Amino acid sequence: MIDTLPQTLIWSDDVLSVLDQRALPKKIEYLHLLHIEDAHFAIKTLAVRGAPAIGVAAAYALAQSMQDSKLQDQEFHQQLMANATYLKSARPTAVNLAWAIDRVVAAYQEMPYKRTLVDCAQAIHQEDLAISLAIGEHGAPLIQPNWSVLTHCNAGSLATSRLGTATAPMYTRHQQGIAFSVFADETRPLYQGARLTTWELEQAGIDTTLICDNMAASLMASGRIDMALVGTDRVTANGDVVNKIGTLNVAILCRHFDIPFYVACPSSTFDPATPRGQDVVIEQRDRDEVIGRHSTALKVLNPAFDVTPHELVTGIITEHGICAPSELRRQLSDLQ
Amino acid sequence: MIDTLPQTLIWSDDVLSVLDQRALPKKIEYLHLLHIEDAHFAIKTLAVRGAPAIGVAAAYALAQSMQDSKLQDQEFHQQLMANATYLKSARPTAVNLAWAIDRVVAAYQEMPYKRTLVDCAQAIHQEDLAISLAIGEHGAPLIQPNWSVLTHCNAGSLATSRLGTATAPMYTRHQQGIAFSVFADETRPLYQGARLTTWELEQAGIDTTLICDNMAASLMASGRIDMALVGTDRVTANGDVVNKIGTLNVAILCRHFDIPFYVACPSSTFDPATPRGQDVVIEQRDRDEVIGRHSTALKVLNPAFDVTPHELVTGIITEHGICAPSELRRQLSDLQ
Repeated sequence: MIDTLPQTLIWSDDVLSVLDQRALPKKIEYLHLLHIEDAHFAIKTLAVRGAPAIGVAAAYALAQSMQDSKLQDQEFHQQLMANATYLKSARPTAVNLAWAIDRVVAAYQEMPYKRTLVDCAQAIHQEDLAISLAIGEHGAPLIQPNWSVLTHCNAGSLATSRLGTATAPMYTRHQQGIAFSVFADETRPLYQGARLTTWELEQAGIDTTLICDNMAASLMASGRIDMALVGTDRVTANGDVVNKIGTLNVAILCRHFDIPFYVACPSSTFDPATPRGQDVVIEQRDRDEVIGRHSTALKVLNPAFDVTPHELVTGIITEHGICAPSELRRQLSDLQ
Repeated sequence: MIDTLPQTLIWSDDVLSVLDQRALPKKIEYLHLLHIEDAHFAIKTLAVRGAPAIGVAAAYALAQSMQDSKLQDQEFHQQLMANATYLKSARPTAVNLAWAIDRVVAAYQEMPYKRTLVDCAQAIHQEDLAISLAIGEHGAPLIQPNWSVLTHCNAGSLATSRLGTATAPMYTRHQQGIAFSVFADETRPLYQGARLTTWELEQAGIDTTLICDNMAASLMASGRIDMALVGTDRVTANGDVVNKIGTLNVAILCRHFDIPFYVACPSSTFDPATPRGQDVVIEQRDRDEVIGRHSTALKVLNPAFDVTPHELVTGIITEHGICAPSELRRQLSDLQ
């Protein structure tokens, strides 16, 4: 079960350690992020990845970066802001990163003590645990007995502090004793599905089959996919979903074959300040990730994310429940 | 230009040599297929690949396998039939393979001399050259100036004796001095696009950009793809298109974004004996092709092909012209 999975993030003695997801599944190694540069590098190189985990890691990293500071008052605050900006630059598309950092900064501005920073980071961590449990509870009933669920990338336990986002309904449903299976897109170019999702779902005893990203249409055509369930890095004000490159592909295929397409995320992923998906600047990553060892191509594109328009999304699952993407704004503001 | 490309197949002194496409683009190496087992292995392992090239290679291999035979009459014929069956088993989905072999056998039955076998193989080779030129002439005007063309897998020069099938209109259009660009799907799991298509198009001076298979939807959403053009391994009686896994993906995306989706192939790829695409048995290949070095997944699917239903295909380009997929049967029978 899920309890057999290693912890994604460990905070101990004021030091943050993260499971190095670049080495998985062959090696289980932790990086001890002693300096803010270590955290920036770990986030940038995807050693720690997944929107919620990035948020928690960045919150701890920011808190940790100020613990030994001798600066006072205004100078301390300036350094805190500089560190916050630096950490945010590691993954510009991940809205949880900015959200978590802003929250730590705001907490400090409210109560200007060093310990406030750590307390806030720990609160974010605890909430993330609770959120993944709630997403699991809300989403699990969507998975009918004997269904096959397609997922893309890793919005799994490894991307959060506990049950994951897209995987939370799967883990919860599995714990309820309901039989179902999962098809995991390998997720080029970085193979998060092949390396991480298949590994963590297999660890938990869930029947999981690895496919290449381009095989989903063929499986859907033969009636072997009953729903798609993915995570997201950002949901814009109108309900558009920014997620790992290839997600739009899956959503369009689901529409073509009339298969429900669900997105799971903590409500902190919602970005009401950005009106539509096309307003989001998409991170372009290094060409070598695509080239690998097999190609000599001179020109390469490597966008890290794509935008799934809200009309292709059946529903968004958050810790507060399930709603249509266009309803998310209202649902969250009603809660405030 | 295309003349700078190495030959895919060379027949010299009754020995067939093929450019080893597994080593491309890093190494340009020829395999000398001295025995029928060598040819079977080269076809099975994709050292020689692409429906037309497989057909030509198999025709030569069958002819060559009988050149030193001491058998006579009925025994010779029996051995010929056994070798034909053996070669066909190397790639069961490729209809050109069976077509070319059957044609060599039929030629021998008409004129039972050893030399008939070689003459027939050479005729198939020459026709393949002429066919790719004709596909290029018919298809080139479809590519409007400054358009971007998406292609999948390698239906290129390397897959035929000369200009390729899907690439023939590109090479011809380029020779006409019309500017356009190509996006090449990398084509998991074997990266034919990343290894072969980008390489051969770049050699010819065509502006080519490599993308992962899952990036096409994102490019289409931003208006950067104007048409798709792919090859096929088999067109069934109703016009369904069997091609490299991922082709159906591209066709559905094109339909969603209202982008024309064309298929180019020699008319020998048409299989009137098979009513519909879903009647074709899809070759399942080795799991290790998907697993690679990065995954530890236990369950893997690896279908080599998928079926694009005829209603998603804008037109099929053959050496005889362009027609709707549902019209191909009538067009070809009118020609007979």
